[in-house]
Amino acid sequence: MKFSPLVDDLIQSLRCLPGVGPKSAQRMAFQLLERERKAGQKLASALASAMSDVGHCTACRTFTEETHCPICASSRRGHSDLICVVETPADVLAIEAGGHFSGRYFVLLGHLSPLDGVGPDELGLSLLAQHLAGGEVSELILATNPTVEGDATAHYIADMAKKHNIKVSRIAHGVPVGGELEYVDSTTLALSFNGRLPI
Amino acid sequence: MKFSPLVDDLIQSLRCLPGVGPKSAQRMAFQLLERERKAGQKLASALASAMSDVGHCTACRTFTEETHCPICASSRRGHSDLICVVETPADVLAIEAGGHFSGRYFVLLGHLSPLDGVGPDELGLSLLAQHLAGGEVSELILATNPTVEGDATAHYIADMAKKHNIKVSRIAHGVPVGGELEYVDSTTLALSFNGRLPI
Repeated sequence: MKFSPLVDDLIQSLRCLPGVGPKSAQRMAFQLLERERKAGQKLASALASAMSDVGHCTACRTFTEETHCPICASSRRGHSDLICVVETPADVLAIEAGGHFSGRYFVLLGHLSPLDGVGPDELGLSLLAQHLAGGEVSELILATNPTVEGDATAHYIADMAKKHNIKVSRIAHGVPVGGELEYVDSTTLALSFNGRLPI
Repeated sequence: MKFSPLVDDLIQSLRCLPGVGPKSAQRMAFQLLERERKAGQKLASALASAMSDVGHCTACRTFTEETHCPICASSRRGHSDLICVVETPADVLAIEAGGHFSGRYFVLLGHLSPLDGVGPDELGLSLLAQHLAGGEVSELILATNPTVEGDATAHYIADMAKKHNIKVSRIAHGVPVGGELEYVDSTTLALSFNGRLPI
């Protein structure tokens, strides 16, 4: 026991946060105790209610405490016949920040990774298949990460979409805007050549 | 609103932690929601009880939910007539980790900083004066940080101790063990020359 039980317990509990080691946990605990008791109490209640009440959107699988997330529930989305498949809720946020996509999302909450026990069931692909069979989807846009697992997941889902005769596409991978060719890795360069568009 | 209210609220609340910006807060929230609901619930209850119950040790001012912290309450400390004055509870931990000091501590929870409104009262120096007047203290060891504010605080407390005719010393500042002279800054080198000991 380094401090008194409650303080020790707080420091130990803070370590469940990603990227928080023993020193950071200690710093966080002391800062909260010293200067931010109210914010700490607010965090405690926000955590407690989020942990117990937040579930998944029944349409797109993102996190929400309602049946449908705000995006799925919105009637103001322009292209509700487009579904963009992403790996995480953070990806949804990144795409929404751009504001150029007005369709709906489907959040896999992971990628196919048989070694970690993540198969089609864990990614909710049967729910996606229901959407595809429903006849309201005109195009499936795959925005999984350009990693080995993300690629495998994209191919698996593309096969599913083809079975339902639904148009399927993958977002372009290439040189990022503002990037310099000189510093772009060769695989990305190769992808940017393969994905070239006529102008 | 980016996500549903509870998730947004959690992300916003996590930002009260030091060093946590919008992206990290989002990452923490998703990790807790996705994989660590139990740890999140435990953190919520640890936070709630620490924020409401943890106060200050009536003897040394460190954080504890009891009247006395484990160190002040311990009867097995060898030199209870020595008091080491430090700025933060983390400093206590650093010194305890060494295991070479067996006296008691006095935690200032800050340093003199008139511009920020931190004066002797905020540092609990009247409580320290009571200890000094109590006649049980044989030596006061000042271990405030070697910064401008830490130095000022040390001088202020040294004057207090001299008024009570109590021996007062400051921990040595110099070249750290394992450090190389070449890379030590000139102020530290100057301190290490001033603080040289006969061998």
